[in-house]
Amino acid sequence: MNEGRLFGLGVGPGDPELITLKALRYLRAAPVVAYYVGKDKRGNALTSARPHLRPDQILLPLVYPVTGKKPAPPYDYEGAMRAFYDEAAEQVAGHLEAGRDVAALCEGDPFFYGSFMYLHDRLADRFATEVVPGVCSVVASASVLRTPLVYRDQRLQVLAGTLPEERLTELLSGVEAAAIMKLGSNFEKVRRVIVKLGLQARALYVERATMDGERIRPLAEIAPESVPYFSMILIPGERWRG
Amino acid sequence: MNEGRLFGLGVGPGDPELITLKALRYLRAAPVVAYYVGKDKRGNALTSARPHLRPDQILLPLVYPVTGKKPAPPYDYEGAMRAFYDEAAEQVAGHLEAGRDVAALCEGDPFFYGSFMYLHDRLADRFATEVVPGVCSVVASASVLRTPLVYRDQRLQVLAGTLPEERLTELLSGVEAAAIMKLGSNFEKVRRVIVKLGLQARALYVERATMDGERIRPLAEIAPESVPYFSMILIPGERWRG
Ligand SMILES: C[S@@+](CC[C@H](N)C(=O)[O-])C[C@H]1O[C@@H](n2cnc3c(N)ncnc32)[C@H](O)[C@@H]1O
Ligand SMILES: C[S@@+](CC[C@H](N)C(=O)[O-])C[C@H]1O[C@@H](n2cnc3c(N)ncnc32)[C@H](O)[C@@H]1O
Repeated sequence: MNEGRLFGLGVGPGDPELITLKALRYLRAAPVVAYYVGKDKRGNALTSARPHLRPDQILLPLVYPVTGKKPAPPYDYEGAMRAFYDEAAEQVAGHLEAGRDVAALCEGDPFFYGSFMYLHDRLADRFATEVVPGVCSVVASASVLRTPLVYRDQRLQVLAGTLPEERLTELLSGVEAAAIMKLGSNFEKVRRVIVKLGLQARALYVERATMDGERIRPLAEIAPESVPYFSMILIPGERWRG
Repeated sequence: MNEGRLFGLGVGPGDPELITLKALRYLRAAPVVAYYVGKDKRGNALTSARPHLRPDQILLPLVYPVTGKKPAPPYDYEGAMRAFYDEAAEQVAGHLEAGRDVAALCEGDPFFYGSFMYLHDRLADRFATEVVPGVCSVVASASVLRTPLVYRDQRLQVLAGTLPEERLTELLSGVEAAAIMKLGSNFEKVRRVIVKLGLQARALYVERATMDGERIRPLAEIAPESVPYFSMILIPGERWRG
């Protein structure tokens, strides 16, 4: 009996219509559909893919041990995540060994800050693996914000809001164009840096771009405690008056 | 009579199956399909979209005045491009004023270094405009190269190979992760910087990712004069041993 194949499928930023034809084709052909999900949550990748599923597909939720803010030591967060990814990979491997193809759903693009990378790192040497790229949240946010993102030879920096304040300040001073991801509880810090550097007139904020509950608001008006994980700040490049 | 609407449609990096369901729906509904194309070329965006076109759609090619290497002064390249984009916008506006929706095809994503931005900048205030994001060439290249691109809080820099050698050297020293676009005649300079910084073991090269003629080769083996404009170097972030 042949082993199954692993498919990492970018399902796009949220709107189910932002999946590609190719990801949809593989999705519908796979007997097993794996997806990451927070405890007691529905899972954004599954929400995007749900309208496309067949009723006979096996759903394999991979449930994160922790969601939201990272617990402080002595909790061994890194160790817990490592064990979780090991275990998730073995669950997927079980289906592959039994000859069943597995479609792993990935928010946005699989290789762009996606948790699929941890399955890929563990399984791509053991099983035939194919990755279908997806529309990532950075370009989806630009389309929702109706702003061109980068012109000509401008440098685009993609940064995580989890970085320390000094590092963010250093990276954003004199910035040409940037996308700042992973806001949530990091929002207030990031906004402080932006204000300090005089960038607030250029910075655009969106949450849940293309998903249900999408919201665009001026940076100054955001209540930090309301900021979800699925949010982003863009600093578009200066318009080229071509 | 109502004015037409302008749609900027990301058609993805090359493979016609990497268009989204949403872009496909708008594409098939539009009476006019506009696309940029080099003189005597077929146009990559059109090549990706062609299998999806209806026979009764009006094709509107927007033909660049210059392709390939930028002509040296006294030729006024900037002025010629500005005039070209003005003229292209007026051609599109003609259809919109006549009440015809126009789908503008965009390689990859429309707002990510795309020429569509120059239409958007000229027309989005005058006509109802919608942009559908697409799979950009950076993530498509990572999928073809089978490499995760960025982990956790790593910074990703997207750079143009057109930048001066000193600037590239400065931006790439100590790099966490990077994508270097617009190679073509800039390839040799970019490779020199990569070698000088000791990054060659990490750098991956692909040309025409997901298109016909896709080619992956070790950086050291590339003949610079063979490098097309549609090529990219990725320096993926260090694997997180999660
Ligand atoms: C772990 S990364 C996953 C990125 C994803 N693989 C992609 O390609 O976009 C999660 C971060 O992506 C961003 N993000 C993902 N989807 C988003 C959306 N629909 N709107 C705004 N930000 C989003 C947020 O900044 C979030 O913190
Ligand atoms: C003007 S930019 C357009 C980028 C496009 N809007 C996107 O979203 O990817 C052109 C550059 O994109 C890169 N590129 C576009 N398609 C590519 C492909 N299929 N393979 C490799 N590089 C590509 C090349 O570096 C090229 O020089």
